[in-house]
Amino acid sequence: MRTSQFFLSTLKEAPNEAELPSHKLMLRAGLIKKLGSGLYTWMPLGLRVLRKVEAVVRDEMTKAGALELLMPAIQPAELWQESGRWAVFGPQMLKMKDRHERDFCFGPTHEEVITDIGRSEIKSYKQLPLNFFQIQTKFRDEIRPRFGVMRAREFVMKDAYSFHADLASLQQTYDGMYRAYSNVFSRLGLKFRAVAADTGAIGGDGSHEFHVLADSGEDALAYCPTSDFAANVELAEALAPADSRPAPAEALRDVDTPKQTTCEQVAALLEIPLQRTVKLIALMAEDKLNIVLLRGDHSMNEVKVGKLAGMTDFRFATEEEIRSFFNCPPGFLGPVGVDRSKVRLIADRAVAVMNDFVCGANKPKFHIAGVNWGRDLPEADIVADVRNVVAGDPSPDGKGVLEICRGIEVGHIFQLRTKYSEALSCTFLDAEGQTKPMEMGCYGIGVSRIVGACIEQNFDDKGINFPVAMAPFQVAVVAVGYHRSEAVKAAADKLYAELLAAGIDVLLDDRNERPGVMFADIELIGIPHRITIGDKNLANGDIEYQARRDPAASLVKVEEAAAMMKAKLA
Amino acid sequence: MRTSQFFLSTLKEAPNEAELPSHKLMLRAGLIKKLGSGLYTWMPLGLRVLRKVEAVVRDEMTKAGALELLMPAIQPAELWQESGRWAVFGPQMLKMKDRHERDFCFGPTHEEVITDIGRSEIKSYKQLPLNFFQIQTKFRDEIRPRFGVMRAREFVMKDAYSFHADLASLQQTYDGMYRAYSNVFSRLGLKFRAVAADTGAIGGDGSHEFHVLADSGEDALAYCPTSDFAANVELAEALAPADSRPAPAEALRDVDTPKQTTCEQVAALLEIPLQRTVKLIALMAEDKLNIVLLRGDHSMNEVKVGKLAGMTDFRFATEEEIRSFFNCPPGFLGPVGVDRSKVRLIADRAVAVMNDFVCGANKPKFHIAGVNWGRDLPEADIVADVRNVVAGDPSPDGKGVLEICRGIEVGHIFQLRTKYSEALSCTFLDAEGQTKPMEMGCYGIGVSRIVGACIEQNFDDKGINFPVAMAPFQVAVVAVGYHRSEAVKAAADKLYAELLAAGIDVLLDDRNERPGVMFADIELIGIPHRITIGDKNLANGDIEYQARRDPAASLVKVEEAAAMMKAKLA
Repeated sequence: MRTSQFFLSTLKEAPNEAELPSHKLMLRAGLIKKLGSGLYTWMPLGLRVLRKVEAVVRDEMTKAGALELLMPAIQPAELWQESGRWAVFGPQMLKMKDRHERDFCFGPTHEEVITDIGRSEIKSYKQLPLNFFQIQTKFRDEIRPRFGVMRAREFVMKDAYSFHADLASLQQTYDGMYRAYSNVFSRLGLKFRAVAADTGAIGGDGSHEFHVLADSGEDALAYCPTSDFAANVELAEALAPADSRPAPAEALRDVDTPKQTTCEQVAALLEIPLQRTVKLIALMAEDKLNIVLLRGDHSMNEVKVGKLAGMTDFRFATEEEIRSFFNCPPGFLGPVGVDRSKVRLIADRAVAVMNDFVCGANKPKFHIAGVNWGRDLPEADIVADVRNVVAGDPSPDGKGVLEICRGIEVGHIFQLRTKYSEALSCTFLDAEGQTKPMEMGCYGIGVSRIVGACIEQNFDDKGINFPVAMAPFQVAVVAVGYHRSEAVKAAADKLYAELLAAGIDVLLDDRNERPGVMFADIELIGIPHRITIGDKNLANGDIEYQARRDPAASLVKVEEAAAMMKAKLA
Repeated sequence: MRTSQFFLSTLKEAPNEAELPSHKLMLRAGLIKKLGSGLYTWMPLGLRVLRKVEAVVRDEMTKAGALELLMPAIQPAELWQESGRWAVFGPQMLKMKDRHERDFCFGPTHEEVITDIGRSEIKSYKQLPLNFFQIQTKFRDEIRPRFGVMRAREFVMKDAYSFHADLASLQQTYDGMYRAYSNVFSRLGLKFRAVAADTGAIGGDGSHEFHVLADSGEDALAYCPTSDFAANVELAEALAPADSRPAPAEALRDVDTPKQTTCEQVAALLEIPLQRTVKLIALMAEDKLNIVLLRGDHSMNEVKVGKLAGMTDFRFATEEEIRSFFNCPPGFLGPVGVDRSKVRLIADRAVAVMNDFVCGANKPKFHIAGVNWGRDLPEADIVADVRNVVAGDPSPDGKGVLEICRGIEVGHIFQLRTKYSEALSCTFLDAEGQTKPMEMGCYGIGVSRIVGACIEQNFDDKGINFPVAMAPFQVAVVAVGYHRSEAVKAAADKLYAELLAAGIDVLLDDRNERPGVMFADIELIGIPHRITIGDKNLANGDIEYQARRDPAASLVKVEEAAAMMKAKLA
């Protein structure tokens, strides 16, 4: 492609609303253009990147035996009513009525539709297993669309759904999808991590997320560098401390904390480690107050709390509810002296082994120190793992200590089991002639999100730094003086033709612009290899080669340039 | 691909609701599966066909210099309000509100969005011309979805939009699109015709439709076998008769027509040619009655009528309006004796030169014969071309006589001119620094409709008869006894590998089924070439080759089979 026949549209500054580097850079590079909140046009340059991602996803899915189909984006409400999700999916689902006032939605996902296909097309175990996938535009009406294509409302997703006669077959396909996903992200040149993920109401251990690693990632991931363990922090278990609780050594006493309402402030005032403090979080569940106690340096894990008996639909207590029960403002709350007949006390494992700790005194402007279980307050009603792991925690597999990194979720594989096949009567006849619901799996990749995630991982102050597999063009040939130098024009046209003939995805920058403008554009849009052809070097038979990720350029003989690029891209 | 790893799902009978052969065959062959009214899943077999069409469209658009992008499917109402189409597009547009109660639609077309992109991205004549295209899912809420993918609600469309500094540039791109469209349909192996089409309110002659020819086509096309003339019947001009009106020869007289209410019945009763009769059609426009007179054998052309002064928004008169004016029931209406101060009389050119004609008498059960202009009624207020051409009419280019065929519209190219650029202030600075609205063109192809149209043109009693370019597989290797004969398995696997290595799209039917079942499936789904490998022929070193379109099969040496297929597909 020649820039003169293409559409490059770069900006010096990104619009103010863009927060993340990838969002800013995608707008500045002209990969996308905003139509409305969470709605983006993929401009020709960006679509080239998106299509490259799609092609790798399609190839790996096909190699793994999945069959591509294409389901409608618009789905009738009836199927969602049958699965029970029409009422519960919430406002993320874009609903509409057709001209006959029938209810439809723009599919946020396709479990219902594929299960409907499965129940009418699959009759016998002989047809199983089957794995169908599609690459399709989806819509989720995010309450606050942001981060450009990373949390857009309309987006491109690869979703796959598999059908099985038994769990062993599901596990086999699931493992194949795990490998296929790993291949996809490896081939795209991304640093990524697969982590065990929460399976929610379905339970079991059949769910993994795939994350592109980036400092800006919304998800915290726990992994063990000396073992295979990796899990979303939501799921990673904080083991019970190995040591038992020491005996009380201090007397219980009030501490004057006139302005100190957080553990950090109290620890600083008392000049003690934060690990000696305990914080209290008040939650309501089933109309009852629950008190969660955490060590001052720990944070609550809502997924773990939600899995405790009676806590499925918990919410944070309101300030009004707190004041009514404790007769004290938030910031000074503590577990000592509360009416335990009216409240359930949930202590994190780490708190349950503490002695002589500091916590709120349940009166304004005071904390208490030297608090001890048994002596100053009854033991907790429940001791459980309710905190997020932190770096340095022991790995749950006992093979080292955890580290924490941040990731952007780009893939998720999940063993649905029989959730949808039972709801929609998607059954088959097994070898014994018995009717059974099919085991199912689902496997998603955020195709358009990958582009943003890749840029979060690959950028510098000049712009985007695409891996070769995702770059809009593999090579840029910058012809300086194309319109005034016959020699430059001849050399550039010849090299361009040679690279094209070698199947290389090359952009010939034949614009009548200053070199600085051309260089800046090529760097901003992230082309990994740049060859500059200008009169000065050409007089010596040279062209200049610059790798996007290398600091220095080098001179190469003009007749060797095509061979060099072929070798680099082989 | 092996059938054992693919998903074939054929039916003996099509669902009753399917009317057209293509709809029946697509369901029977398992190319598509219905989700709801006008909503179809493209099953793996069908998606292979759709993707082949997409690939050819994409390739020809790119070769013609168009740049692919991808605009959102969901569009904000504001742009449509700006163009004035939000209120007038009608119930075909699927409208919805997002979670913030803002209005959106599922884009039925993208003129507004692309014009919004153009106005913000294009500033100078130096950037022009530009031609953008996308291949995308669209939605139009048809009042009566039918014919499967041919008139579905959700469908795949290629839409392109071009921007220009002047009309000459638009014409150049338009001509390029005309050639690209011709290439697309030629490469897909379709018999098609490009015809001049109506430009509606925009006027001018810049619109062509591309039709796949098929007896079941909804559109009538007029063309001249001895010249280049071809036009949708909506548009084809019926020239004024060369001969002038003969003098009256008969006396005006009542004719008793007790049960004869149509020209056909009256002509039969009187034993005269239908061409001697005149029919009357009553239309309302601008609150005034208009009478259109047509020869008995002609039909009214509503597009032509709508272009007459004062007739833009005409409608047919109700029976009540007819009875109130004529004091006579429909079936016996005529132009003689009506109060011409209250009605406008529009005579088709053919009627204007008739003498001694027969028409309704304006009293029940009577017609009148021997009617003559001037003598029996005043000359018409307007003489115009208001009928559809018929086979045998002179070609408007004067180079022969017209024939009529039927077609399915699969493409449409259109010179929008400045309709949208003026409405949305999509302007540029020309070489003189003047601000001007851009000239625009739009170019659509019904990608998913092409699959149905192709089948309407290519089927027989065994099933679909795909052209090679659109077939889901180019070759089927049917291995009879694959699971019980080592020789068959070895020969089939070897040939399959050889064909795959040659880049041929081959399906190896390795099912454990009777030959009749396998043959019937391969014929139904329309694979153009079939090679059968069975023990009997293999004993003589032969395989059987059968072209889908040839009556007879032939024996070929097994070692020559791959070379033969390569030669046939070269």
